[in-house]
Amino acid sequence: MAFSAAPYIRRANYYETDKMGIVHHSNYIRWFEEARLDYLKQSGLNYEEMENGGILMPVTDVQCKYHYSIRFDEEVVVWTTPTFFNGLRAVFSYKIYTANGENLAATGESSHCFIDEHTRLPLNLKKRCPDLYETVIPVFADEQELKKVKE
Amino acid sequence: MAFSAAPYIRRANYYETDKMGIVHHSNYIRWFEEARLDYLKQSGLNYEEMENGGILMPVTDVQCKYHYSIRFDEEVVVWTTPTFFNGLRAVFSYKIYTANGENLAATGESSHCFIDEHTRLPLNLKKRCPDLYETVIPVFADEQELKKVKE
Amino acid sequence: MAFSAAPYIRRANYYETDKMGIVHHSNYIRWFEEARLDYLKQSGLNYEEMENGGILMPVTDVQCKYHYSIRFDEEVVVWTTPTFFNGLRAVFSYKIYTANGENLAATGESSHCFIDEHTRLPLNLKKRCPDLYETVIPVFADEQELKKVKE
Amino acid sequence: MAFSAAPYIRRANYYETDKMGIVHHSNYIRWFEEARLDYLKQSGLNYEEMENGGILMPVTDVQCKYHYSIRFDEEVVVWTTPTFFNGLRAVFSYKIYTANGENLAATGESSHCFIDEHTRLPLNLKKRCPDLYETVIPVFADEQELKKVKE
Repeated sequence: MAFSAAPYIRRANYYETDKMGIVHHSNYIRWFEEARLDYLKQSGLNYEEMENGGILMPVTDVQCKYHYSIRFDEEVVVWTTPTFFNGLRAVFSYKIYTANGENLAATGESSHCFIDEHTRLPLNLKKRCPDLYETVIPVFADEQELKKVKE
Repeated sequence: MAFSAAPYIRRANYYETDKMGIVHHSNYIRWFEEARLDYLKQSGLNYEEMENGGILMPVTDVQCKYHYSIRFDEEVVVWTTPTFFNGLRAVFSYKIYTANGENLAATGESSHCFIDEHTRLPLNLKKRCPDLYETVIPVFADEQELKKVKE
Repeated sequence: MAFSAAPYIRRANYYETDKMGIVHHSNYIRWFEEARLDYLKQSGLNYEEMENGGILMPVTDVQCKYHYSIRFDEEVVVWTTPTFFNGLRAVFSYKIYTANGENLAATGESSHCFIDEHTRLPLNLKKRCPDLYETVIPVFADEQELKKVKE
Repeated sequence: MAFSAAPYIRRANYYETDKMGIVHHSNYIRWFEEARLDYLKQSGLNYEEMENGGILMPVTDVQCKYHYSIRFDEEVVVWTTPTFFNGLRAVFSYKIYTANGENLAATGESSHCFIDEHTRLPLNLKKRCPDLYETVIPVFADEQELKKVKE
């Protein structure tokens, strides 16, 4: 069965607002990152340790749709879902809700590759770190997607 | 003939880098904004004045593909192209090159609507500010796209 | 007796680091703000409501001494202490510790005035909002400092 | 004679404002950094190269006094003055003016030490890089201050 993480919860900071009186749209991209790293940590993958092991996971593509403006001090709940992983590339999707759950504030997606810290060249997590790969597989994907990955 | 703006040029700041040693991906979204507002200013549309007139142009959708990592103090050249405008919605696309022009560092797109500062409701620039609309039309679109808009 | 607030706790985000591999120094100033607003909220002063009432509390002076570098994902504990308040001006001091309490990472101070949102002119909270002033007085100062304020 | 650098000039970005409608105070600290690194570059010290050589120059202390609020798109002129340097520690002071020079928007100061990138221990630039030290000395200090340094 798929791993089920708790959502990531935080408040909008004052310095994250802009003169429009709402949170600046670039910060949602940062919240995606906060939520993603929190999700990975919950799943047993310590990103800090992975980086210390010389593996980086840079963003290759990001997008965000804004549905509702978040204001200062408003609590948001970010749900992260891993939607693809094959050792070369990983994709996550995000939903940001207001705390009361009434408003879907934003939806988004980020794609990532894995690179060697020193060469900065892409690497295959399956070859470079089979153990890490095996740990991640059941976490990243629910059974259906896992099947696709293994095919 | 279409308005032709100079690209937006700037350097990557130290505080824009992250522990990966490169500019954090969220900052490209901010550079898109810098480039877009510079483009609008060059085109004769002072965004500050538009906001003072009670019209905001929030981002409804943004995306960015990362092709090449920008490092501290590296000069980047951002080309902004308006690709759609009908008074209700505007879309811009972006290309970020390294200064030498050898590397395409990122491509992206942002979509915007127009809202009233006070009601926060969408507005039609054509109805609310016909003068502004007429000024923007030839700027936002080259002839071909302008044709589509007017159809 | 003086009001005693819980410290403000948070983790260092990835995007807050710079290429030195540690949290960029400017972010400590932002953490001071997070901690200050959290402190005020705990004390019963909702800053959001105060702003909605047309009163802003901008920073007039800020300083920070850096003793220990905070790294990505490290938990920090921020203690906020109000050290001066007379209705015209407020001063807060801060101590940032690492979560284990072993390291004092930073100390700092911020000074603030109160201004009218529209005129942007300084105001005296005692005259403009006597109720708010009376609420804040016992919170902002322990008995000893309160005495100084009332003298 | 002392080295005389051109001031650092830039505009306030939209994303640097907050809901108060002005540039968030933390960004002035970032502008100090921009101005300082620009100053060092003008003086012949390429900070990027220094870091590539394994020497970091972290901030140990920063302060800023805010005199005038900077608004979106306002041009600012930042003057950087090195006020102390002895190979172990360097201090810079800053003045931020509005572009017309009518308003002194902020004044500030930052102190720095030099550390080894790997050990993270303080180092003496005079011992570690005598050449760099000799290059920096005449730049960092006008004759009067240079005298104090050599005493």
